[in-house]
Amino acid sequence: MKKLWGGRFTKSAEAWVDEFGASISFDQELVKEDIEGSIAHVTMLGKCGILSTEETDTIKLGLLTLLEKAKNGELEYSVANEDIHLNIEKMLIDEIGQVGGKLHTGRSRNDQVATDMHLYLRQQVIEIIDLVEELQDAIVEQAELHVETIAPGYTHLQRAQPISFAHHLLAYYWMLERDKERLTDSLKRINMSPLGAGALAGTTFPIDRYYSAELLGFEKIYENSIDAVSDRDFIVEFLSNGSMIMMHLSRFCEELILWSSQEFNFIEMDDTFATGSSIMPQKKNPDMAELIRGKTGRVYGNLFGLLTVLKGTPLAYNKDMQEDKEGMFDTVKTVKGSLKIFAGMVSTMKVKKEVMATAVKKDFSNATELADYLALKGLPFREAHEVVGKLVLICIERGVFLGDLPLEVFKESSALFDEDIYEVLLPATAVARRKSAGGTGFDEVYKVLQQIKQTKKS
Amino acid sequence: MKKLWGGRFTKSAEAWVDEFGASISFDQELVKEDIEGSIAHVTMLGKCGILSTEETDTIKLGLLTLLEKAKNGELEYSVANEDIHLNIEKMLIDEIGQVGGKLHTGRSRNDQVATDMHLYLRQQVIEIIDLVEELQDAIVEQAELHVETIAPGYTHLQRAQPISFAHHLLAYYWMLERDKERLTDSLKRINMSPLGAGALAGTTFPIDRYYSAELLGFEKIYENSIDAVSDRDFIVEFLSNGSMIMMHLSRFCEELILWSSQEFNFIEMDDTFATGSSIMPQKKNPDMAELIRGKTGRVYGNLFGLLTVLKGTPLAYNKDMQEDKEGMFDTVKTVKGSLKIFAGMVSTMKVKKEVMATAVKKDFSNATELADYLALKGLPFREAHEVVGKLVLICIERGVFLGDLPLEVFKESSALFDEDIYEVLLPATAVARRKSAGGTGFDEVYKVLQQIKQTKKS
Amino acid sequence: MKKLWGGRFTKSAEAWVDEFGASISFDQELVKEDIEGSIAHVTMLGKCGILSTEETDTIKLGLLTLLEKAKNGELEYSVANEDIHLNIEKMLIDEIGQVGGKLHTGRSRNDQVATDMHLYLRQQVIEIIDLVEELQDAIVEQAELHVETIAPGYTHLQRAQPISFAHHLLAYYWMLERDKERLTDSLKRINMSPLGAGALAGTTFPIDRYYSAELLGFEKIYENSIDAVSDRDFIVEFLSNGSMIMMHLSRFCEELILWSSQEFNFIEMDDTFATGSSIMPQKKNPDMAELIRGKTGRVYGNLFGLLTVLKGTPLAYNKDMQEDKEGMFDTVKTVKGSLKIFAGMVSTMKVKKEVMATAVKKDFSNATELADYLALKGLPFREAHEVVGKLVLICIERGVFLGDLPLEVFKESSALFDEDIYEVLLPATAVARRKSAGGTGFDEVYKVLQQIKQTKKS
Amino acid sequence: MKKLWGGRFTKSAEAWVDEFGASISFDQELVKEDIEGSIAHVTMLGKCGILSTEETDTIKLGLLTLLEKAKNGELEYSVANEDIHLNIEKMLIDEIGQVGGKLHTGRSRNDQVATDMHLYLRQQVIEIIDLVEELQDAIVEQAELHVETIAPGYTHLQRAQPISFAHHLLAYYWMLERDKERLTDSLKRINMSPLGAGALAGTTFPIDRYYSAELLGFEKIYENSIDAVSDRDFIVEFLSNGSMIMMHLSRFCEELILWSSQEFNFIEMDDTFATGSSIMPQKKNPDMAELIRGKTGRVYGNLFGLLTVLKGTPLAYNKDMQEDKEGMFDTVKTVKGSLKIFAGMVSTMKVKKEVMATAVKKDFSNATELADYLALKGLPFREAHEVVGKLVLICIERGVFLGDLPLEVFKESSALFDEDIYEVLLPATAVARRKSAGGTGFDEVYKVLQQIKQTKKS
Repeated sequence: MKKLWGGRFTKSAEAWVDEFGASISFDQELVKEDIEGSIAHVTMLGKCGILSTEETDTIKLGLLTLLEKAKNGELEYSVANEDIHLNIEKMLIDEIGQVGGKLHTGRSRNDQVATDMHLYLRQQVIEIIDLVEELQDAIVEQAELHVETIAPGYTHLQRAQPISFAHHLLAYYWMLERDKERLTDSLKRINMSPLGAGALAGTTFPIDRYYSAELLGFEKIYENSIDAVSDRDFIVEFLSNGSMIMMHLSRFCEELILWSSQEFNFIEMDDTFATGSSIMPQKKNPDMAELIRGKTGRVYGNLFGLLTVLKGTPLAYNKDMQEDKEGMFDTVKTVKGSLKIFAGMVSTMKVKKEVMATAVKKDFSNATELADYLALKGLPFREAHEVVGKLVLICIERGVFLGDLPLEVFKESSALFDEDIYEVLLPATAVARRKSAGGTGFDEVYKVLQQIKQTKKS
Repeated sequence: MKKLWGGRFTKSAEAWVDEFGASISFDQELVKEDIEGSIAHVTMLGKCGILSTEETDTIKLGLLTLLEKAKNGELEYSVANEDIHLNIEKMLIDEIGQVGGKLHTGRSRNDQVATDMHLYLRQQVIEIIDLVEELQDAIVEQAELHVETIAPGYTHLQRAQPISFAHHLLAYYWMLERDKERLTDSLKRINMSPLGAGALAGTTFPIDRYYSAELLGFEKIYENSIDAVSDRDFIVEFLSNGSMIMMHLSRFCEELILWSSQEFNFIEMDDTFATGSSIMPQKKNPDMAELIRGKTGRVYGNLFGLLTVLKGTPLAYNKDMQEDKEGMFDTVKTVKGSLKIFAGMVSTMKVKKEVMATAVKKDFSNATELADYLALKGLPFREAHEVVGKLVLICIERGVFLGDLPLEVFKESSALFDEDIYEVLLPATAVARRKSAGGTGFDEVYKVLQQIKQTKKS
Repeated sequence: MKKLWGGRFTKSAEAWVDEFGASISFDQELVKEDIEGSIAHVTMLGKCGILSTEETDTIKLGLLTLLEKAKNGELEYSVANEDIHLNIEKMLIDEIGQVGGKLHTGRSRNDQVATDMHLYLRQQVIEIIDLVEELQDAIVEQAELHVETIAPGYTHLQRAQPISFAHHLLAYYWMLERDKERLTDSLKRINMSPLGAGALAGTTFPIDRYYSAELLGFEKIYENSIDAVSDRDFIVEFLSNGSMIMMHLSRFCEELILWSSQEFNFIEMDDTFATGSSIMPQKKNPDMAELIRGKTGRVYGNLFGLLTVLKGTPLAYNKDMQEDKEGMFDTVKTVKGSLKIFAGMVSTMKVKKEVMATAVKKDFSNATELADYLALKGLPFREAHEVVGKLVLICIERGVFLGDLPLEVFKESSALFDEDIYEVLLPATAVARRKSAGGTGFDEVYKVLQQIKQTKKS
Repeated sequence: MKKLWGGRFTKSAEAWVDEFGASISFDQELVKEDIEGSIAHVTMLGKCGILSTEETDTIKLGLLTLLEKAKNGELEYSVANEDIHLNIEKMLIDEIGQVGGKLHTGRSRNDQVATDMHLYLRQQVIEIIDLVEELQDAIVEQAELHVETIAPGYTHLQRAQPISFAHHLLAYYWMLERDKERLTDSLKRINMSPLGAGALAGTTFPIDRYYSAELLGFEKIYENSIDAVSDRDFIVEFLSNGSMIMMHLSRFCEELILWSSQEFNFIEMDDTFATGSSIMPQKKNPDMAELIRGKTGRVYGNLFGLLTVLKGTPLAYNKDMQEDKEGMFDTVKTVKGSLKIFAGMVSTMKVKKEVMATAVKKDFSNATELADYLALKGLPFREAHEVVGKLVLICIERGVFLGDLPLEVFKESSALFDEDIYEVLLPATAVARRKSAGGTGFDEVYKVLQQIKQTKKS
């Protein structure tokens, strides 16, 4: 069939090249945004007297019909029409006749596609913010149950100090809070209108870009038409924010996987999020946590893919930019799916309090208490540190833990030790006494939970 | 020599492993921040009564002495003391005796290093914002000289429509404006205090985290101690923002390089930013533009490096995180250097108005005018487009441009053409008539420049 | 429906989690390889007496039926059966009854999927090598037409020295030759059999891994079962080789785009590989070259995606590894499509000899000739270089080129100059005299072309 | 000071731009290679009669003097001379007078720097291959001690089947074997000479590229001068191979870290490779394993950085390519250091046999044995799998393991069970019976170790 832009060409393009170049196989995801952008555009053309009221109404009606069909999945796209824009325009002309050709007055595919992407991403980012909040809710819910569940806290994957398990979970709450903040910040740069920038230079038609922007709910317009059509920052920023979310989830996944192992045995994942093995029937694999950890790679790859595309490309639009879409769609799908599943995993996981409780009793993670004990009594910290190091060595030689040492051994290492040391060495004491702001002390954790819930209400 | 943490160890580490693991070779860059953080910490310890006034004063005095020495480059670091923190602590003890060992009360290297990084990056981001503004100023300055300089506007590196050269330059102004916005947004997440989070769980000492945060000019504190020590988001966000800046500059570089070629010949770079060839004396290579384009790779690499480091690492601190520094330092250096040089390149480049003027006269970039002309007279855009396509073919066959065709040829293709078409085809007319908001019309560009300058003043 | 591995589970998984975790939507691409692997496996089981002849024959027949259906696109996959392996196994049981359940004896999905991937990639790499050769052929063909076409040679995108256009094209021949070499080298690591490694530890059944490997045409077997199921190196290596190919093509694309610009005007792309503009009818955009340059990002992204997935994952199989497939499929499709289109672009592009010929006459790219001239007469190269630098400056001041200067000006700068200098300055002389091995001298280029064609024949 | 290429320039470059553009701060690492390349070049010039014997000897002597000084660290480099090439040339002229200026006859910095890089990387790759072998040796050594050490084998970090610990370690042997193979393959593309390609087009001097290549030990020459100076594939390939090595090590690191945790407790790292905590004296952190895992990010970043640099750059040399060096040096240093330390870690780690032995007794990793048992007796594997699944559930309900179930429970689930099932369920039996090629059976592992050692001897 004849191409809409083919006037100048003397030779028809071969089908396979067309297919390689066409974007309709993936940009049809933008059908709703494309039609909505067109409705705003034609409404503006009518208001500005560029099209007659009749033309405007006919075109709008045609577009609404197509929108309805799109929602019902009744549109059939054709590779010969390259992309979503030409497909819709062709269908419009089929629907309402030659007047449909007037829709493209005063705009270009360059500003049109940018408009579609802004509309799409605005919606998706808002939905992702909601999903981040759902995961935060699930975390808070679990945390509320486990403020007084004492767990080993790790650095270097070595037990360091006993902590409130809620405190550990809440660390993820705050990471996600920053993710939300970043996504919200990015909306400023997503929610702006390129429509009316034309191919690159604006247009000679007396259009009103502020009006079409308003119709589409955009907060402002791009102030420079060349920038408007060549900017893909807002997508890079989204991919970067998506990468950060996935990075956070990958850390959480790693922990869920560790905790699900027979060795840690701190949690049991709900069956919904685990799978069996085709050959080993006893296995209960934390599949979803592994898969999400793995999907981090895909989102990082999408970010780097687009950064590569944009590196060194001159202004304004180049066909390279067609490569902005698939990675964005894939990231949206991956991030949304991962967040959704994560909320489920966290909500339903079974926390094995007793296993954790036993763990903290059988290690040296209370050693810091000793050092702090001595420091509080005036010994310079570095010296206190050394005293404790030696006590740990004695324990290891004797095959016992610190709480098992007789008082005289303590006193031999330092005269500052007293009977109360045994109380100090209890895990619950160790946790409770960390009352510094943001610390793991039970009261402090309760307070933070309270604040979180109040912020949410307001 | 004896390691500060070596109490427990029975065997001294071999030197080459030490060197591989030590960070002092690069983290000495944080010396100022490390000492300032310590001063705030000890001041707070004193205020909270954890150290006596005398101890506090002694330690502060010692730290101020070291700060002075650091500024004069008089400190000598040792690999045996691993990192900047232990180096400074050791020097402090050498300076003021065992009381120096009390400085580390109620903190850990984990919150200490995080504090240093926050302080460092806050300062750097503020400086980078200034450099972005300097480049914007240089762009505005050049743009003011070239509002009425007509240049070919490109899409697909094909001449598309004539534009105001100022309009093209200003596209970069707006990209940089978003960079500035993103950097400013990021400060919210940089300017917060991890100090007092301890190793991971907070501390049993009655510290006041709000006070030390205030002393260091931080806006808020991390609400969760585990998050405080394991968070490196703020660095990833910086590397991402830095990547975006470099991506923008790489696009600008590409254009400067194209424009400097004999084929385009639109500008001449100042000698300061160009170099000759060791073998071809006639060459004037736009070296700095090429180099900055190349340095984009390094910054992308730093971003990807840190994302890789963080992927799948469990909480809280792991030694992997030591790898957060060199890429950050390198990015700071690269972005600052590139922006600085860019401001110079843009300020000093010689724009060849006449060459551009000649260029737009000898091409078909006025073809859109014809299509718009017909559309304004009521022909559906798609049909107008096709008429023009055929006229371009006629020109190519005859070896002329559109303005050279006799009126009857126009009339043969469409009865809507009239004498005024020749005026419409002039490049200056084409530019002037693009009056849509953000378009390239001269008046519009003047208006935008005015706005920019007013915003700056206010 | 009931899951094949669900025996242990008390709760059925929710549908949307299943879908997120299932790979059947993309791994169905491996259907042929999966069935062929199974045929080899069951043949081996029969030969080793693990299954009876009858069982073996029944299963093989069932598999052949499925293979036939697969080729005719008659198989219908179900998300409930997760992946291609369970889908096929389920269909087999439906086809031939419970005996189908014996197929999985002595293997696991872990070695099965690895086998599929090895079979798939072997075939694809062989096909890609063929496509690389097709592009090399197209290059050689064009080169043969343009040995004596003189073009400007560039460094820093500044004209440096005149060259044979064929010589320039052939640079890409050699890049591709290395790509071919790397792909061929990689086959050693692709063409090896993981089949029989089981879940991770081998199997207790008396299987013969060498026999099944032989049936599948593998050159060797993995010597370690854990390695066999957890290795994805061969895919990373492929993605790296694919990235290098795309990088090469992106450089070629950049040149085709530059050469197609009005400013360079060295070539005209065939209409098949160019497109028009929806708004600017005169445009002929080198779309395919831009698109392929852009697609480089996608392949780089796929490489980094998989490197991220594998970073820090413990042995043996983890669900993260399911993420190895889509990036591989996408890379195969992108690299094959890009190579195919490139061969077409190069074959059909029209080279504008005269434009290039004019270009080299109007620049200073013959300046090196002067320096070499002086050096050959005994002047140290550095001094010769300086003499020529000054002559170029004189030309620029006078607005002429080197060949236009009168002899006395030459002689004033150096007494070594003589009348023959004008012959030396001609572009054709400059090219012809570069007779060093691998140089651009016409004879040398003819010789290299001859060698290439002889190698191809042999 | 005056620049060597400054003849044409009217304005001296500002110092800070010079510094930004200069490479001498890092490319001085190539001093040895640069001088050796020059010695070969001048020797060739002499042999070809381009320089007189006297000139040749003088220059060689001067270069040898500089080489000696370089080895003694007596050279002082200057930013004003930009790079290692001009620095050395300037020093040579200072050393032997104006005749030194003849060294650069018939070459350019473009082929010179490429030559340096090829020489450098050839040496480094050979050294890295040696270090890979050292690590393999350490693995083999440990493996020999632990063929009969039974450990849990994991998939999804869930215990899957008992394995020989040696078998697990040897998986890394084979990964490294492929790394070695890839590095060796890459030497073909590293060990070739660009020298004599000139700036891009070859030279008019009657040089002998084969001779200089031979002097430098190169196996062949680049067949195309443009390719010779613009090719950086060999570095990308090295960075890719380095990334794969680091990826392998990161997986090994992850396991060492897991095994060192209190929860797994399978190994104890030697003190040399672990560190303590500044605040928690009981900690013994597997620092080196964490650090190497983290350094994976840096090497991935270097790879991605160079791929970005090269994307879309036109031929031949562009200044962007100066960015090829630091990432390469950093990768060499990182990969060598990591391999070296790894060999030490593996050699010295203490394997806790008894802990592993206890572990495998207390889990369900022998469940596959049951399924295989039934399958061997003729039950289709899928049915066997289901039977075992139910038995595992019974155990979990009763809080016992499979070996603890009375025979009648077995018989109730399937009549095929018999008394010998208890023998089959023993971990040692499970391992021993996996006799398939490459499997974990003790005999098989002994055999593979034998083969490895024989290959090494030959």
